[in-house]
Amino acid sequence: MLEGPVLVVGAGLLGTSIALALRRRDVDVALRDVSQENLRIATAVGAASVDADGIRPELVVVAVPPDHLAEEIAAALRSTDAVVTDVGSIKGAPLIAARALVDANALSRYVGSHPMAGSERSGPFAASQALFDGRPWAVTPHDTADPGSVELVTDLAELCGATPVRFTPDEHDEAVARTSHLPHLLAALVAGRLTDAPRSHLALSGQGVRDVTRVAGGDAGLWQQIISANTTALSALLLDVRDDVDTLLTALSSGDRAPIGAVLNRGVEGTAVIPGKHGAPTGAMSTVFVTIPDHPGELARLFADASDIGVNIEDLRIDHDPAREYGLVEITVAANAADHLLGSLEDRGWTTHR
Amino acid sequence: MLEGPVLVVGAGLLGTSIALALRRRDVDVALRDVSQENLRIATAVGAASVDADGIRPELVVVAVPPDHLAEEIAAALRSTDAVVTDVGSIKGAPLIAARALVDANALSRYVGSHPMAGSERSGPFAASQALFDGRPWAVTPHDTADPGSVELVTDLAELCGATPVRFTPDEHDEAVARTSHLPHLLAALVAGRLTDAPRSHLALSGQGVRDVTRVAGGDAGLWQQIISANTTALSALLLDVRDDVDTLLTALSSGDRAPIGAVLNRGVEGTAVIPGKHGAPTGAMSTVFVTIPDHPGELARLFADASDIGVNIEDLRIDHDPAREYGLVEITVAANAADHLLGSLEDRGWTTHR
Repeated sequence: MLEGPVLVVGAGLLGTSIALALRRRDVDVALRDVSQENLRIATAVGAASVDADGIRPELVVVAVPPDHLAEEIAAALRSTDAVVTDVGSIKGAPLIAARALVDANALSRYVGSHPMAGSERSGPFAASQALFDGRPWAVTPHDTADPGSVELVTDLAELCGATPVRFTPDEHDEAVARTSHLPHLLAALVAGRLTDAPRSHLALSGQGVRDVTRVAGGDAGLWQQIISANTTALSALLLDVRDDVDTLLTALSSGDRAPIGAVLNRGVEGTAVIPGKHGAPTGAMSTVFVTIPDHPGELARLFADASDIGVNIEDLRIDHDPAREYGLVEITVAANAADHLLGSLEDRGWTTHR
Repeated sequence: MLEGPVLVVGAGLLGTSIALALRRRDVDVALRDVSQENLRIATAVGAASVDADGIRPELVVVAVPPDHLAEEIAAALRSTDAVVTDVGSIKGAPLIAARALVDANALSRYVGSHPMAGSERSGPFAASQALFDGRPWAVTPHDTADPGSVELVTDLAELCGATPVRFTPDEHDEAVARTSHLPHLLAALVAGRLTDAPRSHLALSGQGVRDVTRVAGGDAGLWQQIISANTTALSALLLDVRDDVDTLLTALSSGDRAPIGAVLNRGVEGTAVIPGKHGAPTGAMSTVFVTIPDHPGELARLFADASDIGVNIEDLRIDHDPAREYGLVEITVAANAADHLLGSLEDRGWTTHR
């Protein structure tokens, strides 16, 4: 089991959150950062318990931007005899770069990893000991990684409250290309088209376009590094997308509907394979809409009523009304509970519909 | 002002909901549908107050699938002297088709419209008198439409609780191509790629890919009709998307990052132009995460606390945890209220982070 001390290199959002999560479990942590300001803030929020100078870490966690991963991984392998991991969003390219910088013996102490957690904010002020609670954390050993090192990095994920999931570096990069990088790029393409639109047209924006484009609001500089480092997996997917776009363009110009239907049907299938709550297949769900006055207290009253009714709310959206002083709340519940919830809320005076 | 009676042709989700919304305002409504089952259900839920045979409607509302719009609009113009509207998702193609079926005098009584409301469910059982409350409702007169007819259709939108927004048919189709049809198609392309993935890769799915792909779960048959009927506007947008995909592919293979950054930055700009709550520009918002045990009552307790604290919740997501028996609630509030909410929730024993 990981006992520490742990040296965290990079006191940004992820590094400081890992330090705080380890401190929660009484593991000693030291911090390094080229930014004295980050170090000062991270130390002030309690992320460090020991000084970085002169410690002999059991584990070094490299939590720097993608462009600097390889050099910092190599530096940690050369300057310590510790196990070294990083928490970058891509695993193949930094491994190749690090392999060129250190010998095979040192490289056996390196095991990449990637916690699936983040925030729209960045920096140590946004850090939290709870950031990884219940999130998947990919552990991605290369084929010459030392088994003991793999175990120690797996321990790190567990100590931080996450669920470790094992992948090879290439498998990881393929997986996140599909589940994160391609969705981000296509969301950016949809959002990018909105900048051309007359403002009046955007009045017809509904919840759909808001959902599709939300991730595209993320830090463009960071995403540029991520996208640029996952060339192989992303290029393959983008070629498939271009083929599909060509298929749609041909179908639209020829009036042949079958290919459009095929793309749409495959989309329906795709939404069904995303794992649901607690990793289980998505059960049959129903959506119930409730109209609420838009001021503090009404949501609380609605939730108190839903709680009294005894129905577990699986998901919820507040669908803003573009012109009126009230909103619609969209509540997702198990399909077999929807009628009961609907009737009981109506009985309590709420205006509902499905 | 619209006084009725109104004849609704097509007793599905939209037609029955319009009928119910009008009945709420004591306007007489008659229903027609080729499906006796739809008619029976819609009548049973109180959507009709008068018999369709022999009435002389003031307004006919055509609420049939896109493929049948033009023929039903023409039939209503020929068989009555009423104003005729439809509630289809595309406005240009049905107008052109209807124009070929009736004379110019009859066509002046036709004014297309499109309420921006719907449900994942369909059919009269899913109908609700509250479906249009506070939603935009596009009113799309052609250039030879009679002004009195335009006014009557505007009245319909208002009587149903919606906010009428005026567009030409082509403007409408351009607007929804950008804000609805293109997002739907690209969501389907992202979701479609997931069907190729090994199931284990999907364990890394986060809230991002769920948001991007959610709309792609909608009725493929209906969407096929909608997409096929908006050829011109959608083709132009898809050509732009193909150019962007080519740019990304070239940039990835050459290692030139600038074009990737440009696509991402434009995406960030696009998310900022979507109108926020109540049609106002989106103010500065912050996100606060709260960990909650996943059973009935905890959400209610959280909302009661947030209400006591006096912070207005602008939006909320329940971010399901793939492996643990608790969830993360993502609360969006005005940026200047986030620190107060965070501190106050922590004081009350909640585990929070930003």
